[in-house]
Parts: sequence; C-alpha cells; structure tokens
Amino acid sequence: MSRIPVAILGATGAVGQRFLQLLAEHPLFEVVEVAASDRSAGKAYREACVWRLPGAPPAGVAGLTVSTTEAPFRSRLLFSGLDSSVAGEVEAALAAKGHAVVSNSRNHRMDPDVPLLIPEVNADHLDALGAQRRRTGGGYIVTNPNCSVVGLAMALAPLHRAFGVEAAAVVTLQALSGAGYPGVASLDVVDNVIPFIGGGEEEKIESEPRKILGHFEDGGFVAAAMTISASVHRVAVSDGHTMAILVRLAKPASPGDAAAALASFRGEPQERRLPSAPERPIHVLDAADRPQPRLDRDRENGMAVSVGRIRPDGLFHLRLEALVHNTIRGAAGAAILNAELLQARGLLP
Amino acid sequence: MSRIPVAILGATGAVGQRFLQLLAEHPLFEVVEVAASDRSAGKAYREACVWRLPGAPPAGVAGLTVSTTEAPFRSRLLFSGLDSSVAGEVEAALAAKGHAVVSNSRNHRMDPDVPLLIPEVNADHLDALGAQRRRTGGGYIVTNPNCSVVGLAMALAPLHRAFGVEAAAVVTLQALSGAGYPGVASLDVVDNVIPFIGGGEEEKIESEPRKILGHFEDGGFVAAAMTISASVHRVAVSDGHTMAILVRLAKPASPGDAAAALASFRGEPQERRLPSAPERPIHVLDAADRPQPRLDRDRENGMAVSVGRIRPDGLFHLRLEALVHNTIRGAAGAAILNAELLQARGLLP
Amino acid sequence: MSRIPVAILGATGAVGQRFLQLLAEHPLFEVVEVAASDRSAGKAYREACVWRLPGAPPAGVAGLTVSTTEAPFRSRLLFSGLDSSVAGEVEAALAAKGHAVVSNSRNHRMDPDVPLLIPEVNADHLDALGAQRRRTGGGYIVTNPNCSVVGLAMALAPLHRAFGVEAAAVVTLQALSGAGYPGVASLDVVDNVIPFIGGGEEEKIESEPRKILGHFEDGGFVAAAMTISASVHRVAVSDGHTMAILVRLAKPASPGDAAAALASFRGEPQERRLPSAPERPIHVLDAADRPQPRLDRDRENGMAVSVGRIRPDGLFHLRLEALVHNTIRGAAGAAILNAELLQARGLLP
Amino acid sequence: MSRIPVAILGATGAVGQRFLQLLAEHPLFEVVEVAASDRSAGKAYREACVWRLPGAPPAGVAGLTVSTTEAPFRSRLLFSGLDSSVAGEVEAALAAKGHAVVSNSRNHRMDPDVPLLIPEVNADHLDALGAQRRRTGGGYIVTNPNCSVVGLAMALAPLHRAFGVEAAAVVTLQALSGAGYPGVASLDVVDNVIPFIGGGEEEKIESEPRKILGHFEDGGFVAAAMTISASVHRVAVSDGHTMAILVRLAKPASPGDAAAALASFRGEPQERRLPSAPERPIHVLDAADRPQPRLDRDRENGMAVSVGRIRPDGLFHLRLEALVHNTIRGAAGAAILNAELLQARGLLP
Repeated sequence: MSRIPVAILGATGAVGQRFLQLLAEHPLFEVVEVAASDRSAGKAYREACVWRLPGAPPAGVAGLTVSTTEAPFRSRLLFSGLDSSVAGEVEAALAAKGHAVVSNSRNHRMDPDVPLLIPEVNADHLDALGAQRRRTGGGYIVTNPNCSVVGLAMALAPLHRAFGVEAAAVVTLQALSGAGYPGVASLDVVDNVIPFIGGGEEEKIESEPRKILGHFEDGGFVAAAMTISASVHRVAVSDGHTMAILVRLAKPASPGDAAAALASFRGEPQERRLPSAPERPIHVLDAADRPQPRLDRDRENGMAVSVGRIRPDGLFHLRLEALVHNTIRGAAGAAILNAELLQARGLLP
Repeated sequence: MSRIPVAILGATGAVGQRFLQLLAEHPLFEVVEVAASDRSAGKAYREACVWRLPGAPPAGVAGLTVSTTEAPFRSRLLFSGLDSSVAGEVEAALAAKGHAVVSNSRNHRMDPDVPLLIPEVNADHLDALGAQRRRTGGGYIVTNPNCSVVGLAMALAPLHRAFGVEAAAVVTLQALSGAGYPGVASLDVVDNVIPFIGGGEEEKIESEPRKILGHFEDGGFVAAAMTISASVHRVAVSDGHTMAILVRLAKPASPGDAAAALASFRGEPQERRLPSAPERPIHVLDAADRPQPRLDRDRENGMAVSVGRIRPDGLFHLRLEALVHNTIRGAAGAAILNAELLQARGLLP
Repeated sequence: MSRIPVAILGATGAVGQRFLQLLAEHPLFEVVEVAASDRSAGKAYREACVWRLPGAPPAGVAGLTVSTTEAPFRSRLLFSGLDSSVAGEVEAALAAKGHAVVSNSRNHRMDPDVPLLIPEVNADHLDALGAQRRRTGGGYIVTNPNCSVVGLAMALAPLHRAFGVEAAAVVTLQALSGAGYPGVASLDVVDNVIPFIGGGEEEKIESEPRKILGHFEDGGFVAAAMTISASVHRVAVSDGHTMAILVRLAKPASPGDAAAALASFRGEPQERRLPSAPERPIHVLDAADRPQPRLDRDRENGMAVSVGRIRPDGLFHLRLEALVHNTIRGAAGAAILNAELLQARGLLP
Repeated sequence: MSRIPVAILGATGAVGQRFLQLLAEHPLFEVVEVAASDRSAGKAYREACVWRLPGAPPAGVAGLTVSTTEAPFRSRLLFSGLDSSVAGEVEAALAAKGHAVVSNSRNHRMDPDVPLLIPEVNADHLDALGAQRRRTGGGYIVTNPNCSVVGLAMALAPLHRAFGVEAAAVVTLQALSGAGYPGVASLDVVDNVIPFIGGGEEEKIESEPRKILGHFEDGGFVAAAMTISASVHRVAVSDGHTMAILVRLAKPASPGDAAAALASFRGEPQERRLPSAPERPIHVLDAADRPQPRLDRDRENGMAVSVGRIRPDGLFHLRLEALVHNTIRGAAGAAILNAELLQARGLLP
C-alpha cells in the first residue's frame, strides 16, 4: 500500500530535522517535499541543511530540492516546523488552499477554532475542525502544544480526570534543543543555569494547558478552570525538559492513587494502535532519583512522558517530577501523532 | 595586633578547604591547627589533602601536621566542616571541653539551645548561648544553615519582616560542590539533571528556615509560622545554588515593594563592618535573565545573595529567583561570619 | 533454533551492563547467567545493579539471580567485564575449566598465546588458540583491546596494510564512561579537562596496537615495528573517545589515498556477515568539523569507527581525527563481535 | 600621579570586556574612551554592552558614551579587541594618525615591521618599531599572538633557548571563550567535542610561533627554523586552552632539565616589575593530573602559563601539557602587558 505523501515546512530547522528523522521509515507518511526559507530554496536538501542530529539526513530526503513555503505543494498533508515569525501567515494561507497543516508552531494554538491537540488527552477537540473548515473552505490547521506544555498537560490530565486539578505550580529545567540551532550560546550554559526563556515561554505554559484540559462545546473551547504558575530555566541538557510540579486537587489523592491514575492512563492513540503511540503514555518511575533526562527521555522512542517522585506536599496536595523529550513528544513526534489520529479518523483531505 | 588562633576540623574535605582558602589572609583569625580523620592524621596537610580548589593550599597551612579530632586543641575557636557522620559527637565533646565550635555541620542545627545563625537575620538567637554554656560548662556550638537554606532564608527574611511570609515553595537547582568530593559521579550530570539529593535535603530546607526566621524568647526558640515546600535538583554547575521561590505574604506586596525591601536589607554585620560582611547582603538584579551561577555567585567575594525576576504570581503573591554561593555564603563563609560576630560581641572564650 | 547460553562476568558494572544491553535481542547468544562480586551474589539482578544506561535492564535478565565468579557455570561461553583487580585469576581459572572466556579486561591481553583480537584486523591471531588450548586443556581466553586502542588500531590498520605505518602520535579526548561508575568525580570535569588517566592508559595505547598489527607466526606473536606516542585526556563527554592521530608512513600517501584505503576497509566480519559487524567498519566523514562524539558515536549501532579531517602534516605524513564508541566498539561490542567470529569459525567449546 | 588615558576599540566584544575588567584598577592606564561598531555608537556603555563576565561593568566605564572607531580619540594609546573583519583597516588608519595601537587582532601580526610580542620572550622585536614609525609617520601597531600561540610559544621559548626546538606537534583542547560571544552553539558542546576551529586557527598556531621565537635583525624578522603541526579541538570549557605538546630538540634534554629551564624562565617584565607581569611566567606543576583549566587558569591573575606532565617521548624527545588563560594571558592581558612594556621603555607616543 502506498504511503501518503507529505511536505515538511521549515525542513532545515531543528524541528524540521526531527520531522525528517522520525518520518524516515514511517508506515503511513512519506516525505516527498521539503520547504524552507528563500535562502535555502533551490538547493538540494543535503546542501541546504546543516544536519544537527546524529548520523546523516535520511537517504530519501537528502536529494530533494528545497522549495519555498509559497510553492504549490502536491502533498495534501503538511507538517510545519516553521519559525513563529513566519508561521502565522504561511500556515493560514496553506489551510485556505485546502491543505491539512499539522503544525508545531505557536501562532495558531490559541485560535478559537484550532485544536491544540494531545491525542491521548483531548481528541474530542477535533470537533472544532468542522467550524474551521467551513471558515477556510476545506483546509485546516491542527497544532500541538509548546514542548514543556506537552509534558505538563500529559502529567496533569490523568489527575484532572480523576481528582480535578485546581492549581499547579511548575518549575522547569529545559533542554537546549528547545531553543533551536544555534540557539543558546555555549558560554551561557557551561557551569551555569539561565533562569529565563524568551518568547513568552512562561505565559505559554500558564495558558495552553487550560485550553488542552478544557472542553469543546457549543462551537467553542471552554478552558479548564485551573490556575498555573510557571518559572522556567535553561540548563545544560541536550534534549529532555524536566519539571517540578506542585498540584492542588479538588479531591485530595494520595501519592499511590495519583501514581495509579498516571500509570493506567490511556487514550485513543493506544486504542487505535497508532504507529507513533507509546504503549504507556506515562511511565511512572519508582526510583527515588528519577526521571532523569539522559536516562529516561528516550522511553518508547521519546513518545512517553516519565513521572517520578510523586509525594505529598505541605502547601499543595501533591508534588512530582515529570520529563518529556522536548523535540520528540514535545514537538515533531507530537505533530506526527496528531496526523496519525487525523488519518485514522478519516479527517485528512 | 596578633590574630586569634583557630583550628579547622575536617580540614581536608570540601568545606574544610574553603575554610582554609577564606581564612588565608583573614584579619582576625589565623589557622594554626588542622584536624581530620585518622587516615590523614600525622601527615603534613599538603600530603594529606587532595586540594580541589584553584591553585594550591595556602602556604601557611600546607606544612601543618594534621591531627585527629580527639587531639587537644590549643585554639579556643574551632571551625567545623566535619562530615555529619562524626560531627555530632565530636562537636559536643569539644564544646564540653570549653571550645567555641562554629560549625557548618547539620547535626546540632535544630538543638533547642544551639543558634542556627545568619548574622544579618537572627543575631538575637545568640541569646541562646547563655543557656547552652550553662549546660556545657562554658564552651558552645554555633551553627550555620544548610547551603540552600542560607540563600532561601536571606531572601525571605526582608520579605518576612516587611510583609509576613505565610508560605513558600522552593525548587532548587543545586551545584555539585554541595555534595563534597568526589560527590556526584560525572556520568550522572553530563547532559543530565538529577531530581533528588539525599541526606534529607528537602526536609532541611523545609524546617531550618522556620527556626531561623523565628524568635528566641523565654529561653527557647519559637519557629516562624510558615509552611515551606522544597523540591531539589542537582545540576551540572560547580558552585552556586539557584532557587525558584514562590511566596505567599500576609500583607500582599508589589514586586517593586519587595525589591526595595530586599535591596535595602542590612543587619548587624553591616553595622559592625565585620570583615567578611558584604556591603549589601542581597543584590537585586534587574536583567531579565539573572541571577546566573557563573556570573553572580562571586558577588562580594561570594558573600552576597543575588535575587532577580521578582514578579507577581497567579497562585502565590510573588515569585523570584535567588542564588547563593553554596560553599562560601552557604558554608565556610557563613561560619566565618558567625565567628566574626561572636568576636565582635565579645562572646569568644 | 535455540540460542547459545552465555554468562556475563562482572554483570553489574559499566561494561557488564553494556553486555546485557547489546545481548538483549542477540540472534546467537542468550544471557542465562550473571556473575558479580560477593556483595551482589544471591540477589536478583535488578536489585544488585544500579542500572546506569537509559531505560531499564532487559526483562529477561532482571530476574536472574547473581552468582559469584567462583560458581560453576553451565554456559560454555563467558563474557568478562571483570575489574582488572580480579580478572586475571578468575579468567585463567575458568579457561582451565574448559570455558571460552571472551574478555574485555586488560589482564591477559599481552599474554603470549592469547589473541588480542579485532576481527576485521587480525583474525589470523586466532591461530594462537591451538597452543593456548593445549596449555589450558581446552578452554581459552580471547581478549579485545583497550577502548582507545580499538579506535586507533582500526584507523591505523588500513593505512598499515596499504602504506606501512612507521610511527604514530595520538592525543586522546576520552569519555567518562571509560572510567566506569562512579568513576570520575563531576567536579573534576565541569568546565574542565583532566590531562591524565590512571591505570597505565598511555602505556596500553603505546603497546597494544603493536601486537594487534603484528603477526602470529612460528607459534608466537611478532609485534609490528612501529613506535606510538600517546597523550591522554579526560573530557566531559559521556560516551565516545576522540583521537587526534599523526602518522608517519613507509610509503607516503595523499589524504585521498588514505581516505580510500580507510573507506574500503573490510574484514572477515563483513564477509561472514556476523550479526554485530558494521557494514563499513570505518566511516570516512567529509565535513570539516567531524567526527564528533555526540553525532557520530552511534554509527552502525556504535560498531563503526569514524575518521575525518584527513590532511597532510608538516612533521609526519598525515594527520586525522578518529572516534570510537568506547563502551560498544571499544568494549562490550568488541567482545561480542569476537565471540561471533569464534562461533562462525566453529571455535566455541 | 595621573594615569595615562586609553581607549578600547571593540569595547563591547568578549576581548573588549576583558580589557575593561583588567584595566578597572590599573595603576598606569585609565580607560576614558570606548569605541565599537556603529550599532553601539552613541549609547552609554552599560546599554550598548551585554556584559558576559561575572558581576557588572566597572563603574567608571558603565557611563561612558560609545563612539565609532572613526571618532577622533584623545587617548594616544589604543587597545584593540576589534573583530578581524574590520581591524586591519581601522588599526592601520589609527597608527597613521599617530596612535600607538596595541592590538589583539590577527590582521597585522605577520606584517614585516609589526612586532608580534610576548614581552618575556621577544622584547627585542620592539626594534621593528623604528622602521614602522618611519613608514606610518609616528604611530604604530604592536600585536600579541593568537590565544593558543601565547601558551605554546611561552612553553617553547625556554626550551628553545636552552636546547633548541626543531619541531613541535601540538594538539589543543580550546575553551569556548576563544570563539567570542555568542560563538559556539551550546548544542555543539554539551556531551561533545568539536575537532575543528575556523578562521585558520591551525595555520596561525603553525606560523606565529616561528616569528615570535625568531629574531629581528638587519631591519627584518627572521623566523625560527622549526616546524610546527597543530590539531585543534573545541571543548566544553569556559576559559583556558589546554595543549598536549610534543617537542623535538636540537640538544636532547631530560624532563628534569626541561622543567628547570621552564620554571626558571624570566624576562624583561619580571626585571622591570611591570604591573601585570606574573612573578613566574611559567608554573611547572608536579601533580600527575595537572594542569587543569578550572584549577590552574587563574594562576597569577591569569597571566602565568602552567606546564605539567613533562616526560620523555618515544617519537620526539619530550612531551608536556600546557595551559593558558586564553582571554587573559592569551588576549587582553597580553596586550596590556605589551603596553606596560612600551610605557616602561618610553615608547608610548
């Protein structure tokens, strides 16, 4: 059976490279087009791109000629890793042309008819696509959350379902790859920590989970009634965002109850056995000193979130540590799983 | 004028080495005795010690012969950087012999007549020495807090005085030197974070500040009525503990009011112009991405705590980032400042 | 077809863990026994071992009970990752009992009838097994080289065959995992380099390649007539030894000729298609800034050596950079490939 | 006595910041002017500059208004930390206007009448200034070497004087600050090594020492007759270049003889007691694992070069490890020492 042709927008960037790596042997999707900025357009991908992942670009992609994002795409499904400085307009234009744009960019995440999707958590948000497609004339945009938010929302979702999350304070220790390439200067992280990330990182972490954990009803998104406080840090880790999370619950739960809710969490990707779906979306780790980025970020090919140190808290009800592979489950892998769900539901154009 | 002779207990360890470094040219104190474990005893210091600080051991100390901690000490003032596995008994025995033991070890910190002292914050706790000396027969123990707690308590103290701190949640990113030497294995921190520190680190951070910010009255310590939640992490930083702190106040304050209270904070060390006292105990930094360990840990020779990113919080009232040099202000330098205050008050035996 | 049962000696150590990881789904060998020090003996492997590799111990091994190395082993084939403090006697005793001991330890590497084997380079050294088995009564020891030496000898072998290597100077930048766990203290490598590695590292690098690149004839090993100078450094890298190598040749060669000789290098593992054999033992990289540990150590599952920056030298004839995954191709993977060759040649007892 | 007014060119860059830091309390020189690119011109220094060194910009400089490099300077002495893309023309123009330009830039280092100066090594090269001043009409340029070359040439100079250096092979492990700011991307150095540095780094290391260790006679520089081979690497170290050096001597020397020659090395800066001169230009370290960047780079305020591991070599005569603080002794501190020598000799205009 032939695979579905797809295009990667922003293919030479950090997220674009992850898209290509993860799709190299994908059972459903085949990368046949790569697009990037004007500077890269017209070159063979292998020349246009400084490949920053281990090894070399996938053989099938290295020889593709890079196009601009204005090019007509024969692929109906487009993955976008575009920089937010251009993603807003480009993605809207492509949706208006009838494409399904599955985007990692932040620009349209909070739009009133655009799903901010984590398939295990809020697959029902795809109901918004009807209204969106009426607006655009057929194409649409589906987004995945900010890389930290994926980890946070996945850790909160089972607790919210079971016990109701009223408030959460999260302090992050984020990996360098989250800033793209070249991103953070090496002198800033050797023997150092930076207690700040630009681009509204804290605001995104405080707002996106409320949309994700909310509902789509009566034609609109209703945000979850919870308050989130985020304090972010950049640390000398290549991949893997670590988060200390404090949670206040509507219905207090013991660490054991919380662990059970987290470990048993499953969603539509698991039911449908989507190709990129982890068997267990959340790995609950018992060891006192886990999760750790270098040891746990690659669980289930980087698609599982790890949670550990679930313990009572004197101020909130519970505290725990969560870890997400920020460029896989937190970015390119998230978008691919979104597209797999769209395909399984028959929503691809 | 001749300097006061002092001995360093645990002189070959990480904290012991900092004592020697900081006392190398001290105007009041002169290291004339060094003590360590039986394994080192009898050797010249330069042979007994693998010096882990930049450069070489101070010339005046390198030739001293290391004694055991059971040796009779001619110095009346003893600085202790002993490991907690032995500090408890050794320090008590030496106090019973009439020595002033100024200790960085945790063993006696919470004792009911032992001051847990930060001279800028709770110099009045020295009132406990009267009872303690009656108990011991003349000698005494004065302790400084856990390395993280020094930073936390100094950041909270001005806010507590001005606005009343009801609760604080702190998430730490702690330096490797806090674990001593060899301490943390390098494989555990390269491209990694460890969300755990043994030895009851979180418990110390949750309890010690309450004693420090409390009062000594009617012959006993009354802990401050505040709740603290601590979540600790080890990161690949040599020196300098970074902390994200959320604070709930009895009397809500704006970030500007908090910054003013922090920046203007002064105490007895500043009034008395103690040799190791920073001019400004707390440096309030305006830049959006500060404090950072590599850039800010050495402010005022490592004796100032840096605070930045003071901003409102959706869950608590305020949040901020604090940084303390864990082996200077958070350990050896803290003890030396304690001894300077004892000397200035005429409390040295 | 059933797999060959094998035991891992030193199974809880750093090399032992790599053995278990690499053998988890091996087509020929199945780990059925694990042995370690007396301290671990009697415990289930999952309890005896602090697993330091990503994820968790292989399911099939986690429940095995750890034995001592004195235990009788039902496996005829034993992989040894024993510490050199005990490997010498233990391995000799097990060979005397008839086992094939495929060892990563250094103790017997230079023995006059023990092959120091890199299957692509000196498979003919297995001719020494005849004499060795006569001596032991049937069992034998086969060793693989020091982790740096594997990379060096594999980079030199094609040049030696084609042009004759008269001398080589190598300066290494070695990974932390080479020192085992806990190994190097984190404070020693953060913002630092250590220009020294104990245990005779430089001597091993200067002597082992001469045996490897020599011949076995008339019942003995004849070392290659070349001089090697080694200067070693430890750097803050988890896995992957980088080496700058200067080479003097008997028959001068251009960088292009050298690159061709390296890239086309193949040996018996490739001919026999051994399960762990890389398709191309040496990857010659064109980019000016490669090889790099993080990007290139995992080529061909860590079994390929990467070489780059081949260029003329003003003092020697050529210089180049080589990279080897020190715990895979340089240790456990090397031993496994050795065992695969033994099996293919019908030399397993 | 009033200090000599000086200007810093390229004052906002990495080297410019070191100039300001080192000159903050200099006994001879006072920074009264700061110049940088057009982008910074017109702003107060504190606003124009993102200060990357610990603490804050010196108080006396923070309020200076940044000028362009075309501005007329009232200072006769100018320190240049300009980027090499502009330094060539700017420095020549300023020398033509009568200024003494003491430069860290590479552009004029190999000019036939420009001293490439290390005051301890080749103070006689200042004889070239006569010819240069006749050419320019009065002003002149004096340069210091590449940051690695300072360490290499200082380590070779005593050996060259005593025994004659015929050849040297050097392999460097260079710090991140050598690439300026932002310089190397953090993702390129976390858990990694880069075996390459652009901008002709290896060529500079192979050529500059020959000029430095040569003579000025009959109106021209005569390069030393030695061959140097350089292989460079970037490692995750903030400051401090480490070098493994192999040396072939005209007159073979034992490690002890070499150590004696290195340890006793002194020059004109020591005789004249120049303010920035280290008491001992070369610290010979006995410990088997030294020098190390974090522990040894700051010896004598970063102005001493450390040498260790002096040992015989099988290919060359000797090998050793050297360490230089690349932004102090290898850049800004080098230039300041050059200016101090010019002042002491009465050569300042």
